[in-house]
Amino acid sequence: MASTELVLTDRILMGPGPCNPYPEAVQALGRPMLGHLDPEFIALLDETNERLRTVFGTSNALTFPVSGTGSAGMEAAIVNFVGPGDTVVVAVNGVFGGRMVDVVSRTGAEAIAVEHEWGQPVDIDRMVAAHPAPAMFAMVHAETSTGVESDVAAMGARKGDALLLADCVTSLGGVDLQVDGWGIDIAYSGTQKCLGVAPGLAPLTVSDRAIERIKPTPQSWYLDLNMIAAYVTGSGARAYHHTAPISMIMSLHAGLGAVLAEGLDAVRARHQAVGDAVKQGMVDLGFELFAAEGHRLAPLSSIVIPEGHLGSMTEAEVRSRLLGDYGIEIGGGLGPVAGKVWRIGSMGHTARQRNVTTLLGALADILG
Amino acid sequence: MASTELVLTDRILMGPGPCNPYPEAVQALGRPMLGHLDPEFIALLDETNERLRTVFGTSNALTFPVSGTGSAGMEAAIVNFVGPGDTVVVAVNGVFGGRMVDVVSRTGAEAIAVEHEWGQPVDIDRMVAAHPAPAMFAMVHAETSTGVESDVAAMGARKGDALLLADCVTSLGGVDLQVDGWGIDIAYSGTQKCLGVAPGLAPLTVSDRAIERIKPTPQSWYLDLNMIAAYVTGSGARAYHHTAPISMIMSLHAGLGAVLAEGLDAVRARHQAVGDAVKQGMVDLGFELFAAEGHRLAPLSSIVIPEGHLGSMTEAEVRSRLLGDYGIEIGGGLGPVAGKVWRIGSMGHTARQRNVTTLLGALADILG
Repeated sequence: MASTELVLTDRILMGPGPCNPYPEAVQALGRPMLGHLDPEFIALLDETNERLRTVFGTSNALTFPVSGTGSAGMEAAIVNFVGPGDTVVVAVNGVFGGRMVDVVSRTGAEAIAVEHEWGQPVDIDRMVAAHPAPAMFAMVHAETSTGVESDVAAMGARKGDALLLADCVTSLGGVDLQVDGWGIDIAYSGTQKCLGVAPGLAPLTVSDRAIERIKPTPQSWYLDLNMIAAYVTGSGARAYHHTAPISMIMSLHAGLGAVLAEGLDAVRARHQAVGDAVKQGMVDLGFELFAAEGHRLAPLSSIVIPEGHLGSMTEAEVRSRLLGDYGIEIGGGLGPVAGKVWRIGSMGHTARQRNVTTLLGALADILG
Repeated sequence: MASTELVLTDRILMGPGPCNPYPEAVQALGRPMLGHLDPEFIALLDETNERLRTVFGTSNALTFPVSGTGSAGMEAAIVNFVGPGDTVVVAVNGVFGGRMVDVVSRTGAEAIAVEHEWGQPVDIDRMVAAHPAPAMFAMVHAETSTGVESDVAAMGARKGDALLLADCVTSLGGVDLQVDGWGIDIAYSGTQKCLGVAPGLAPLTVSDRAIERIKPTPQSWYLDLNMIAAYVTGSGARAYHHTAPISMIMSLHAGLGAVLAEGLDAVRARHQAVGDAVKQGMVDLGFELFAAEGHRLAPLSSIVIPEGHLGSMTEAEVRSRLLGDYGIEIGGGLGPVAGKVWRIGSMGHTARQRNVTTLLGALADILG
């Protein structure tokens, strides 16, 4: 059997995620293993959850990392709260809104998809007009497929009795987010974006108002918040549900520690400055920006490739040369914009000016 | 905020899991991050899956680590295959059989629970008699709650047209397991037991016969094998489903590498010898064995605490002293045997005679 043990290729990860993790987060992956009921691990988990509350901008008691990647967070955020007889109004302005429609439909709830042109932010008027009394409004704060940031606070102000679910996968830790201040009831994220940690966990936060509406027996056992809450919250003995992914939680704990040591405002400002530099640099190289002006997401820049701009090369060939010759990964487009758009991430530890300089220099060389 | 960054307590993990991971698996957690569509990562994933086939004893094409802990593997192994109108015969001889009944019921399928006394192996005659034509028979190969190993091959020989699902969480890599040879259609495991890797992934294997019966739209999007197969199998371009937990897969790859370098037979023999030493040592200290004779699981020894044997101490106090004074974790009992049984794991890198010697010496000291 050929072995890849000794291939230690390192990349500058400027795609839509994973990013390069913070050194603190990498180091913590190697901490000595602890049992999931060990008092020292419970203390570390509690502290991790407290740090998550800070970056989410919430005092929600039920705040913890789901034991799966961001899409597991999405599923947990939906299957615990809606089912047959419920209506969910879902904003679709990219891949991840579409994914929420799929997940909602699999619960037996009715999903009303409010379709938007890709590259545009969510239109709150259309969301409100879609149904007079839905069980839930669901929207993506930062669409990873289009690089668009939408106004979740505006939705929160008009949610009425509905729950408000926000996908914060590419916003948490990188742009302003105020779960409590904006009226968000349920928010989930991923670790491999602006938090600067390896992929594998989905930070989730749930308001007390939403906790009251958790279904008694959600269709997923693994993601059942009734049972998980008995492990991750409360004081004293914790009830075993499933074995927590210890090393990943240790790494998230350390990554959040690095973010908070730098300062959340400073980290967000760094994401903004580096994201601005990506966009300006790409425009200077003759590319165009895909996301609607005024709604461009800092940590993920969506770039239109003008017809003929790459000479005889396809866009895939350019990405392949970036990866092969420079060790730089950027992302291609998904769905209707595949082949037409690039997605350049500047998230977590990757959000450094040095990486932008390297990328722009490499692209200038390749495009000759 | 108090910080636990610098608390690097290390334990001898002799509970029901996690075990102490192999040094190779720990080191690999820190490999440079790669994107989930990077050709180098795809090659590593392919090699990981090939190594999993070896330890599972299968040539199943659909063999990969589910992006969640063992219970996510259980859920994937059930929700993709059964739903309303289906009947599943489930052996319940401990906690994890009971959990399967719960997961089956949440799909809308009918679960027929074949209840056994705790500590006894699965009675195949009763399984077969429970229903003439179920969609699935489900059983636990190695019950982590009781330390009992059951005869999965005997069930495979009598499954008829049904699918056979085997929970191999505490058997994979530690005891004999032949997925193809025993007629198992679906098997899942966890990384934190006999594979000697951190918790966080659930190795899963699915026979071609079972693939033909995957539901078109399983209730879980995250665990939908139709979509996941487009990423983890096949050649050429891989379709993005969800971001793979890169670092954990790198660690599993390395842990499996360590197991196969030692030799699968040698690793199993080590688990047997060390498990035998645990049992003999505990009997020598006046304890009794819980699991039925002839069905005792090597990597997890279930120990009955005779009335009055601990003097004035409760069993929890003894475990607390082991943890506090010696840094040794052992497990308490679950459910009906809580307070009456200890569970002592000797799995993965923990399955070394030196750890047994330490545990027995510490217990002798504590019991005076």
